[in-house]
Amino acid sequence: MTVLVLSDWWPLQETVECVPNFSTSDPKVVKEIVGEITRVPSAYLLDHSFDDYYNRLVVTVVGTKESVVRAVLNASFRAVRLIDMNRHKGQHPRLGAVDVVPFVPVENATISDCISLSRDYGKTLGEELGIPVYLYGEAASTPERRDIDWIRQGEYENLDEMIRRPERKPDYGPSTPHPTAGATITGARSMMVGFNVNLGTTSLTIGKKIARALHGSKGGLAFVRAMAAEIPQMKEIQIGMSIYNFEGTPLHRVFELLKVEADRYNVPITRSEINGVIPIKAIVDAARFYLRLSNLSDTKILETSIVRAIRTKP
Amino acid sequence: MTVLVLSDWWPLQETVECVPNFSTSDPKVVKEIVGEITRVPSAYLLDHSFDDYYNRLVVTVVGTKESVVRAVLNASFRAVRLIDMNRHKGQHPRLGAVDVVPFVPVENATISDCISLSRDYGKTLGEELGIPVYLYGEAASTPERRDIDWIRQGEYENLDEMIRRPERKPDYGPSTPHPTAGATITGARSMMVGFNVNLGTTSLTIGKKIARALHGSKGGLAFVRAMAAEIPQMKEIQIGMSIYNFEGTPLHRVFELLKVEADRYNVPITRSEINGVIPIKAIVDAARFYLRLSNLSDTKILETSIVRAIRTKP
Repeated sequence: MTVLVLSDWWPLQETVECVPNFSTSDPKVVKEIVGEITRVPSAYLLDHSFDDYYNRLVVTVVGTKESVVRAVLNASFRAVRLIDMNRHKGQHPRLGAVDVVPFVPVENATISDCISLSRDYGKTLGEELGIPVYLYGEAASTPERRDIDWIRQGEYENLDEMIRRPERKPDYGPSTPHPTAGATITGARSMMVGFNVNLGTTSLTIGKKIARALHGSKGGLAFVRAMAAEIPQMKEIQIGMSIYNFEGTPLHRVFELLKVEADRYNVPITRSEINGVIPIKAIVDAARFYLRLSNLSDTKILETSIVRAIRTKP
Repeated sequence: MTVLVLSDWWPLQETVECVPNFSTSDPKVVKEIVGEITRVPSAYLLDHSFDDYYNRLVVTVVGTKESVVRAVLNASFRAVRLIDMNRHKGQHPRLGAVDVVPFVPVENATISDCISLSRDYGKTLGEELGIPVYLYGEAASTPERRDIDWIRQGEYENLDEMIRRPERKPDYGPSTPHPTAGATITGARSMMVGFNVNLGTTSLTIGKKIARALHGSKGGLAFVRAMAAEIPQMKEIQIGMSIYNFEGTPLHRVFELLKVEADRYNVPITRSEINGVIPIKAIVDAARFYLRLSNLSDTKILETSIVRAIRTKP
């Protein structure tokens, strides 16, 4: 049985999460990168996944502020030695070997703390490895740079030209791409939920229309980024979504709108999955919506309730 | 923020829950009964609620085995002194002042432990207060007695006659009702979820038909007991349900079947609520169903995942 415990039982001080994305799906390279994370004391590997279609490795690590920065720096140094972007192909947009490195507050840490961490990280990468680094999200130095898609325009293949534009001068490091590692984007954001929904169709055209309907900046839901991808072995299309504020745009709204848009093309939803990890609150909110629960607070949850009763007993 | 922690972080040994139901809604009496619970060390009051319509107080207490039995015995002794069943009216079926006292395993405790506790409790009530006591649920001494509805047939008003029947000889105490406290039912069961759904109708007839459609022993869902009640101040009917095995009959199935049955009478669902407390697993299961999540295990939940990563790091 799993048990809910209140935050002051939390076992770590100032906990942050980091979700570095590396441009590789080579199992040997993956193993070496992940090994750099697990080697650091007080840095804890939560999840890592990689696939050939995206040719991308996504690692989730949590821990104290110092340990997470140390672990991700070590992993990044290793990745830069092992990955050659000149030979990289994949369906996910990317600028470099260490493509994007967001820092996320989890407990007893703020978004400001995470902005500082991303600056420390970016500065080190720029100075010690000569990699151009862009700050994005809450750490961005200009309004456009808040948007990772804007920074990634042209991708690795056009970086050499794009990076020379004055409005694209890197925040750290040189104004020329690293010969094999391209550029890196780092920054701070709030907890993100990765939500993938599979559709019973092989039409990428339909998938793209549905993804566009969901995508915030294209007229969809405010805090959603969506893209469609083929899952050839399952003969399905997957709508891969990032919900970057799950309290603002809850899971049920994403799922129900997706259902409506898919209906229009007579495409069924076959299943969905959480990509990475999800805060329990997002799950509770979904149940609350679907069951029309008017009173599902913390105090109604057995496990939370027990621990609170123990702590508050006179 | 609330955080999930694995069971070996659990702060108590052998934790059980008890949910005694007392036949009162007099705030002064409620206060005295609840006071007996909170007074006992290592017994923790999770919830208590009472209302005039049912004229009933439902208390949820958890703690170590010994402390819970002690707290509920003290509360029962107090209730017997303060409640006179000869003057009790209410819409909920009942046999006595201390109507029903189920013991429930929570953590590091089994249903067998809870059967023993209910026997200790019942024996004490019978011997020290002269109250006839029936064992029900998993503690029942005959197959019919597993069913609390069977035991409560005729209610307090007909107890004097019913109790004389040989098949209804109490498990403890005398074979005559206590003059002011009637009889008590105690036993063991697994964790139960109280789920109430309100309907936008004032027709109790329709409400009763819907409740019957849901009720397990009347052809509805296996682990559901349902009854309809008027909520006059809201001009609504409430279907009050107990799901006594929420893994066997999950919340979503109850809610969706209720929706279908209500549709038949063109009655809308206005809202629902959890009565008492609910294990987090029941909530996660509902979200998993509605969002069609194929991979929502413990390892996908951020908080659980962090604690596990910390505990298992070499």
